[in-house]
Parts: sequence; C-alpha cells; structure tokens
Amino acid sequence: METLQALYTRRSVRTFQPRPVEEDKIHELLKAAMSGPCCVNAREWEFIVVTDHDTLCAMADANGRPAQLLKGAPLAILVCANLNEAFKPAPEYYAIDCAIAAQNICLAAHALGLGACWLGTWPQMQRVEAQAELLSLPAHILPQSVIAIGYPSTAPAEAARDLYDPSKVHFNGWNF
Amino acid sequence: METLQALYTRRSVRTFQPRPVEEDKIHELLKAAMSGPCCVNAREWEFIVVTDHDTLCAMADANGRPAQLLKGAPLAILVCANLNEAFKPAPEYYAIDCAIAAQNICLAAHALGLGACWLGTWPQMQRVEAQAELLSLPAHILPQSVIAIGYPSTAPAEAARDLYDPSKVHFNGWNF
Repeated sequence: METLQALYTRRSVRTFQPRPVEEDKIHELLKAAMSGPCCVNAREWEFIVVTDHDTLCAMADANGRPAQLLKGAPLAILVCANLNEAFKPAPEYYAIDCAIAAQNICLAAHALGLGACWLGTWPQMQRVEAQAELLSLPAHILPQSVIAIGYPSTAPAEAARDLYDPSKVHFNGWNF
Repeated sequence: METLQALYTRRSVRTFQPRPVEEDKIHELLKAAMSGPCCVNAREWEFIVVTDHDTLCAMADANGRPAQLLKGAPLAILVCANLNEAFKPAPEYYAIDCAIAAQNICLAAHALGLGACWLGTWPQMQRVEAQAELLSLPAHILPQSVIAIGYPSTAPAEAARDLYDPSKVHFNGWNF
C-alpha cells in the first residue's frame, strides 16, 4: 500500500476475525515499531505481545470500558517505556517515543491488511498500574498504550478521508 | 513509496537543499498530520508552519543546540497542543496525540521525497516556553515538537534497516 494512501485510509478497527495474526506479520509490526525516531536514540521501549485469550480479557478489564474490544482481538501489543533507559534530563520523552512506536505499529498493521485500535493507557495511572500488575512488570517498565490488532471483521472503507482543517494551521506565528 | 518500505527506510535528515517546499506538499504533510488517531477524537493539535528564515533561526536558538540545523531548513512545522481542547480527565494525552501527528508528518515527508528531523521541545519546559514566547502563542497553546523539513542535501540511503531487537519483545507477560 502506498504510504500517503495508508496514512489517509487508516481507521481504528474495533472488531476482528478470530483467526490469529501470523508470526511473520507480528515480526513486521515490531520491526516497524522499532524503526521510528526516538530521543537521543534511547530506544527506551519494550513490547509485550499478547495472544493468550485470558490475558487479553484481563487487559481489557484493566484498561476500562473502551478497551472491552480486546476480548474479541487475537492479538495486542502493549507498548511500554523502560524508565531505566529514558533520557535522564527529561525522561518524559518516553511518552513521545512510545507513541511513535505505537503509531508505526498501527500503520504497518494497515499496510499488512490488519486492523488496529489504539487503547489509551498512560497518562491514566489507574490503567497504567492495573496493566503493570496484571503482566507482572518490573517497577521501571511503564505501560503506555495497548494496540489491539487483528484481521478486520468487515472490509474497511477504502476511501481516503481528507481531515485537513485549515483552522488548525498558522503561518509563521500565531497571529500572522 | 510502499508503506513498510517507508517505515523501514525513514531516516532523520539534517541538511537540506535551499529550495522551498511546494505548497501542495506542505498541504499533504498537514493532511497526514491530521489523519492520525487521537484521544476521544479531541484533535487537540495546532500546527505552526514556518518558512520565514529569520523565524527559523530564532526557533533554532529557542530549541537549543541540536536544533541549529533549523537555520539551514526551508520549512519547519511546530506541532502544538491546544490545551482547551484536550481530554479533560487526562489532558496529557496531548503528548501522544501530537506525537502521532508529528510522526505522520515525518513519514509523509519521506514518501514525498522530502527529509525531516524531529527536534524535541516538550517536555523540556525551557524550550516550550521559549518557542511559545517567540511565536506569540496564547497560554493554552503548548509547543510540543519541531519538525524540520526540506529536500535532503544528499541522496538518502535506500536500504531498509532491520532495527528489530528481540531483547525488547516479551510474550504474554514479562517473565514468560
């Protein structure tokens, strides 16, 4: 799929076929995740790949109501920050670097014929703590986002949307 | 350019040809930025498009030493959060949503034959405040990242890198 087309046609996919995602595709998703830029090349991310149905159901409950769709997903990737590897002067760059990795997963999924839905975890600390406890994460591993992934249960809309909003664009300063 | 190829071949580009970036390409970059997912569809982003050389030089100085390359760039897009539009229960989702927008800009730039370099602003508040003052931003507009953009001064490496690191991947939990 052409890159601009992928950017413009990506949608959040919330219902999935039961068929599993192939291992080679999971590998591509993770390779894409690790191909993004990151602060001072810290690569302060970790990826928990979950295919176990009971674990997916528990992650759904740990992440609140909008995450219930995880119960019908064959795969989730929990993108985490590794605080031991974060940029010391400003560790919160992990929020950006993990988001880049997660967006690359979403785009790669779309390009591979998969669908994905981003389920926010950080900065809602109740969700962060619940995921960390569920998955027995060490204290320096901070869950950031859950990406639910699978083959879409219905054919996605093909048409690219134009979401350009001129009110959001400012030239050479705020008031110019 | 094919999407996975774009994800795997994107590099940070730090030197640019002096030629300006065409208006239609700037439009595509912004359209890509606004095509990403975001928390509760808040779309709490704003984009300051800067082509004025003096402003680019001042932004370079406001953003510190790694941003000096802005002085040789024909274009920068400052991605900002609009705090008035952020998700009230957890406004810091803006850090994720702006990162998604900025990563889409970087990928669209690569697909369009442009190069881009992500210059971190948030969470380094000195940089955030310096950019806000320079560009006369209202108090509810928070500069998040500067993306320097232009035609690369040298041909980019074509080869896709495989940055997959198995030590970062965990299956169905941390210790399993």
